[in-house]
Formats: sequence, C-alpha cells, structure tokens
Amino acid sequence: MAVYTEVTDDALRSFLADYELGELVAFRGIAEGVENSNYALKTTAGDFILTLYEKRVDPADLPYFLGLMEHLAARGVSCPRPVHGRDGAALRLLAGRHAAITTFLPGVWPRTVRLVHCGPVGAALAALHIAGADYPARRANALGPDGWAPLLAGALADDGAAAEALSPGLAEELRAALARILAAWPENLPRGQIHADLFPDNVFFLDGEVSGLIDFYFAATDFLAYDIAVCLNAWCFETDRSFNITKARALLGAYAARRSLTAAELRALPVLAQGAAIRFALTRLYDWVHTPPGALVTRKDPRDYVRRLRFHLAATDASAYGL
Amino acid sequence: MAVYTEVTDDALRSFLADYELGELVAFRGIAEGVENSNYALKTTAGDFILTLYEKRVDPADLPYFLGLMEHLAARGVSCPRPVHGRDGAALRLLAGRHAAITTFLPGVWPRTVRLVHCGPVGAALAALHIAGADYPARRANALGPDGWAPLLAGALADDGAAAEALSPGLAEELRAALARILAAWPENLPRGQIHADLFPDNVFFLDGEVSGLIDFYFAATDFLAYDIAVCLNAWCFETDRSFNITKARALLGAYAARRSLTAAELRALPVLAQGAAIRFALTRLYDWVHTPPGALVTRKDPRDYVRRLRFHLAATDASAYGL
Repeated sequence: MAVYTEVTDDALRSFLADYELGELVAFRGIAEGVENSNYALKTTAGDFILTLYEKRVDPADLPYFLGLMEHLAARGVSCPRPVHGRDGAALRLLAGRHAAITTFLPGVWPRTVRLVHCGPVGAALAALHIAGADYPARRANALGPDGWAPLLAGALADDGAAAEALSPGLAEELRAALARILAAWPENLPRGQIHADLFPDNVFFLDGEVSGLIDFYFAATDFLAYDIAVCLNAWCFETDRSFNITKARALLGAYAARRSLTAAELRALPVLAQGAAIRFALTRLYDWVHTPPGALVTRKDPRDYVRRLRFHLAATDASAYGL
Repeated sequence: MAVYTEVTDDALRSFLADYELGELVAFRGIAEGVENSNYALKTTAGDFILTLYEKRVDPADLPYFLGLMEHLAARGVSCPRPVHGRDGAALRLLAGRHAAITTFLPGVWPRTVRLVHCGPVGAALAALHIAGADYPARRANALGPDGWAPLLAGALADDGAAAEALSPGLAEELRAALARILAAWPENLPRGQIHADLFPDNVFFLDGEVSGLIDFYFAATDFLAYDIAVCLNAWCFETDRSFNITKARALLGAYAARRSLTAAELRALPVLAQGAAIRFALTRLYDWVHTPPGALVTRKDPRDYVRRLRFHLAATDASAYGL
C-alpha cells in the first residue's frame, strides 16, 4: 500500500502541462506496490499511472528501467509504456521526486494462484526474455549472488539475535546454505534482461490471458534462467508452503515452448531456485530486522522463503520441477 | 491507505455477475479512505468504486448511508450513486464483508486548501443540506455530543497517562472544555442530514468547481450548522494552526447565499465549532491511545484539534468567523 509522497494540485497541474495528455479528470493514490508512490491518473486522453520514485530506487537506474519498458512494449510485451512529455523526456521531477507517467494496463492480478495461471506466466516470461534480447543497456543485479553475503551480514548485524528469535538456528542455516549456493553458482548461462520480481501481484490477467506485466524496478541483466527460478518460487508453492510440481511443469513447459532451455540451464535449475529462495529470504529477513515497530509497511515473514529454500536444497536435478 | 480485505478473482467474478456492468477490465486497490477497503473497478460499462465495509461500520447503518447517497445524487448532488444489482439490491456480501459498488466521481481532492476552495465547499455543503431535507430516514450522530463523554473516558482509560505524555495538562483541559461545551450546547437548531466529515480529502475539485463529495459513512441526522462547524475546522486553519478568517468568510458566505443561517445558528457558531474541534480531538486521542505500535494506520496528532479548540473557546460570537 503505497503513497509516500503527496502531490499538490498546483504541482500536478504544472507537471501535466509538460505532456500532451489533455485535461486532468481524476487522480487517486493506488494501494499497490511497496517501493514507490503510485497514482491512477485519468485525463481526457485516457488512463495512466503516475509513479514517484522513492528512496529505494537509485535515480541512476531509472533510464535503464524506463528504456527497458519502452523497448519491451514496442516489441509487443504488455508492460507499462513510458509517456513522453512535449520535450521528449519520459523522466522528470515532481514533488521533489523523480517521476514518470506510464500507460495503464487492464487486468487483475491473481490473489489466488491457480494452475491455469502458471502456463501463461511461463509463456509471458519467455516472451519478455526474447523481446529484451536486443535491448542494449545493462544493469548489474544488485540483489543477485554478489549482493547476498552483504545482505546476510546486514540481516545478522545484531549477531543474529532477531533471526534466532524468529526461528532458532536460522542464522547458521542461512550461512551454510549461502556458502553452498555460491560455491555451486554457475559460471556461464544465457544472459539477458530479466524482470527479477515476477510475483503474482506484478502480473495482470484478463480472460485467462496475461494482460500486463508491471513493476520493472528490480529488472537487471543476469541469467535468464534465474528469472524462471524466481517464478518457480513465486508461483508454484501453495499457501501451506508445499511445492506443486504440476504448476511448475506448466510454467516451465510454456516457457520452453517459446524459448528452449539449454542443458546447462536445466542442470542449474536447482541451484538457481535455491538462489532465488535465499534472495527473498534475505531481503525479507533484512527488512524484518530493520523495520522499526510502527512503520507503515507490512513486514513479510522470511520463513516462507526459508521453507522454499529447504525444498530446493533437497532437489538434485530438474526432475524435482517436473522436467 | 486502505485495503484491508483482499478479494479473490473468483469471488469478484461471481459478485460482478450479479450486476449489469459488462465485463471486468481492471481492479486496483485505492490508497485513500481509512475506514473501509476501496477498489477502483473498471468494466466495459465504465469506472466504479467497490467498497468493502470494515469493522468500524455498523451494517445496520448501511441502508441509511446508501439511501442518502442515492437520494442526494438524484437531486443533483455530485456524490457516489450506489449501483443496483440485477435483483435491485445495492448492498450485498463479498469476501465476508458487506459491499457496494458506487459510481466513480471525477476530480482531485486539494492537498493544499486555498481560498478559492472555500466558497465552493460552503456552497456544496448548503446544497447537500437542501437536497437532504426530504430524505426520510434518520441516524443518530454517534460521534455527536452524546458520544463525547464516553470517548473522553475511553481516551483517558489509562488515567490519562498517554494524554499527559502527549501534552502535559491535556486530560484536564479536555475535561473542562467538554463540560463547558455540553453545558452551552444548543437545544434546538434546524436539523437535517449532515455529512459530518467533510474534510478536504472528501471533496473533489475539477476546474475550480466541486466535482464530488465522498465518504458518507459518518453522515447522520443532526444540527445542520454543526456540519458548517466541522468545515470551519477542516478548511479554515493553516498548517501552522492559525485561523484564516478570510477562508471562513468565503465558506460561510457561499453557504448562506444558498441557505440562510438563522439567528440562533449564528449565535451557536462558537459552541458548535468548539464541539466539532473536540470531537476530532477526542477521536484522534482515542485512536492515539488505543492504536498498537506497529499497526498499519497513520495516527493523527490530536493536538492539531486541541489548538483549534482553544481558538473556538476564545470566540465570543460569529464575528470570530468573519460574520
């Protein structure tokens, strides 16, 4: 639920004067997304989203993110397309924040993931990877393997007291798992532009089809199959934390029908899935430990991803995922 | 920022099947309103708001609220109009909550109140009062004078420790002010349907005109002039807590141009304004004291309204408000 920055009427009006979007009709804060402030903006030209980038987003990364969305949208991916102002710029300042207007995408994100969602998500992810292949910019994955040791150190900055309080033995379990994952991390796999955060609340559906992929603010240049591993974690576990291999098979099968997985990618699937699980376990644990009581954000329980991590650590090859 | 209840796709689809609203296009949580869960709902028939009523709303009051909006909208007030289902009902159940769909209103609420807003708000309030005159239902004002002593008792349930911590002497100041206000409270003034919470975030503007009044979930049958007193508190103080008499004159003048104030109403204006100030001071103090640290709501500082209360206690007659 996210509106961190309020925009005054005058500031909004002056901002919109830089665009050819007709007259303002409505402007409402949106209770979705956790990193930035998002507003539903309606003008006589249609519906748009206005995003104000908050402190977790590095302004230096914004041209990469906006350029990627523009590139993907031009190639038929249903993602937000940055709207350019009269001066040609898509990125400007509003209320002391970097801000951009993007197109509105129809659809509803699935509050309950069902099997019918998993194939379309796999296909959409492959389409994103293919469409991104000729996007020339690069962004290192700040939350990729190089970032995990510092994240763990930060999450255990109190000598692991908070982690221990959450789950006895958690600090040691994460240290051991991380060492094992980093030692087994593949050297070379097909690389490209990845979404890196394709969770259900970032995927809109309409009539059973994917109608929109949103929130590209973790996108990076990294192993394509790591993006698949994120999706296996995000889409294929039930609320009781059990792994649904049928969903995984649907997701992987639909992906592979658009973009074949190499033998190396298939071999790496368990360690990639372990990496994706520990990445979300670590950011959640970090936030859990560092979020002051009373803060206006929902802390997500890291243990959901510790359980996933254990599942993936037990996987010996791609057959664990239905392949 | 309010989405307390998540609605699953299946539940939403089944709910919408009870309406003639065409096909679902989009469904997004809205980060506005604090009592209920609100979603922006787009269908092939247009834009709507779906509200799920949370625990602070008494279901027994919902027919009064929805009926009032319907009544006012039919008489030209720009307020949400409940949408009826195929069976004629506007109120139904969704995700274990009472729920209703209302029409979408254009406009933007003013983040910064300027003088130009105050006349239109006064005129809109008078129009609401006139249009409500023949609405036959009645609802006692639960947050009117009869409710203030219990509210104060609840806010001081810790023997006033939290109030004292907030501001030394606050408990005694509020006790004394409340006794004085209740002793001076008028017996008889023109009564009718009041909004009772017409703050800036409940009033949309478009091109300098009021385009929508929303959030009727505190509406009640009470002194009409009490509603004006709420607006004097909500619209006519600057962020430094000083009173802007020019704004008050604009608000009152525009109101009176549509509905004349009686001599008794004018005489009562200071005590009504005191009552409105203490009402918001008390609910804010109550929430301040009873909101657990870590809760996902913003606690509003009661002292903003204690300062207003002091201003109104010093007012001897309507001239304090520019009349």
